[in-house]
Amino acid sequence: MKLIADNLRITKPDIRMALKNYDPGPIQELVRKCARQGAFALDVNTGPLGKNPEADMRFFIEAVESVTDLPLLIDTTNSLAMKAGLLAAKNRVIINGFSLEPKKLEKILPLAKEFDADIVGFLLYPDSRVPKTEAERFEIALKLMDRAEAAGVAKERVIIDPVVPPLVWEDGIVQARAVLNVIRALPELLGFPIRTIGGISNLGTGAKDKVKRRLLEQVYVAMLASAGLSFALLDILDTDLARSAKVSVILAREEIFSWGMVPEK
Amino acid sequence: MKLIADNLRITKPDIRMALKNYDPGPIQELVRKCARQGAFALDVNTGPLGKNPEADMRFFIEAVESVTDLPLLIDTTNSLAMKAGLLAAKNRVIINGFSLEPKKLEKILPLAKEFDADIVGFLLYPDSRVPKTEAERFEIALKLMDRAEAAGVAKERVIIDPVVPPLVWEDGIVQARAVLNVIRALPELLGFPIRTIGGISNLGTGAKDKVKRRLLEQVYVAMLASAGLSFALLDILDTDLARSAKVSVILAREEIFSWGMVPEK
Repeated sequence: MKLIADNLRITKPDIRMALKNYDPGPIQELVRKCARQGAFALDVNTGPLGKNPEADMRFFIEAVESVTDLPLLIDTTNSLAMKAGLLAAKNRVIINGFSLEPKKLEKILPLAKEFDADIVGFLLYPDSRVPKTEAERFEIALKLMDRAEAAGVAKERVIIDPVVPPLVWEDGIVQARAVLNVIRALPELLGFPIRTIGGISNLGTGAKDKVKRRLLEQVYVAMLASAGLSFALLDILDTDLARSAKVSVILAREEIFSWGMVPEK
Repeated sequence: MKLIADNLRITKPDIRMALKNYDPGPIQELVRKCARQGAFALDVNTGPLGKNPEADMRFFIEAVESVTDLPLLIDTTNSLAMKAGLLAAKNRVIINGFSLEPKKLEKILPLAKEFDADIVGFLLYPDSRVPKTEAERFEIALKLMDRAEAAGVAKERVIIDPVVPPLVWEDGIVQARAVLNVIRALPELLGFPIRTIGGISNLGTGAKDKVKRRLLEQVYVAMLASAGLSFALLDILDTDLARSAKVSVILAREEIFSWGMVPEK
């Protein structure tokens, strides 16, 4: 399991202001912090963007790449912004992402072929509803892979996001377990070592108690690692969560152990 | 997953002194603390005991039961002490435990039939070596179940302990994963919902850095819960570990979630 920082989000006021003023400083500072924490990649979550999506995305990508060589996930539903990001980026890029939603099949998925890029595929219905059961998730995964193949995107390019549910949903906790089972079973179902990605912070959406939220995320990230998750998207600046994730990686992947591998407090 | 306190150990100086002087006070105090932390049961680890194993065990069990109705695991290799404990106990007792070691098959296993008690079966070779692979563990599990049946002990009475390895062993980390896989696969292999137990503190045996040790245990207990472990034997007075374990139980077992279920810091 590799750790991807979800910290670069347009929903944060200082990042929104930096983009509005085309001031790279706050973005660069945040990127440096995430890199120091050992992020494998950075999710660049610009949202759908406004009037100048292409120029905005170019600015954002250039600001990020001015201080890091890390791979980037471009996280926008705006296909113009996505293409501008892919054109601007020098670092390795992962498209985040497509689903069975017609607009995404039509506008986002083809970019994976055009730019020979990895692409995240969300296990969502065409109307963006979240499936309820494991069986529904498997069915959607098969359809996503068919769509990718039809668009000329190699199956090895697809990274499946089974969509971690908020626990406050009526059946959230049952779905959180379904997600673990799906991650575990997908490689066998699809017949090759498909990569998977999960957004940890989804789990605690709506929580008022931050201590409890963090504890749940720390425990769930261990379960995700043990289930074989390839990429954990998380707040890498949450030190306790990042440590749990790093220790989970050691327990889930390493062949030889030494105490020196465990991160210091 | 239910939490069993491993705190009542003869290896602790104050407990050893309490037993030597037949002073129930320190034992009672420790039992009360463990019960307050929500232990489902208490492991009474007297070790093999000395000159008066039967009287010593009777004293110990009576001291514990004077302040709690919780189930007890009697944890000794001394069959005389084990029988004395089973005779003395009023609370529900689980025998901890037997293995393929001839002395245990001969002296300990029959007590499960005689006292109609649950019994822990360790996945160890007859010479007490720890098996290396999952396949070896499965083979030993099948042999243990055969031996139990031959001794007239119902299979539902057996609780399998797959033996959590210390990470400092050369292949400890690989074995720690094998243990998870064994816990997950045993019910299907044996064809019924066999219960399993794991000793969390084994994982960090030999660690000098307590902070790192605790973090590893917190992560591993989440993985064990997710794998379907029935009973976690742990230091229930380690508050962070106990909270991780309780949250793991919520994520691994509950059907409905509310933030009120999560223990306070």
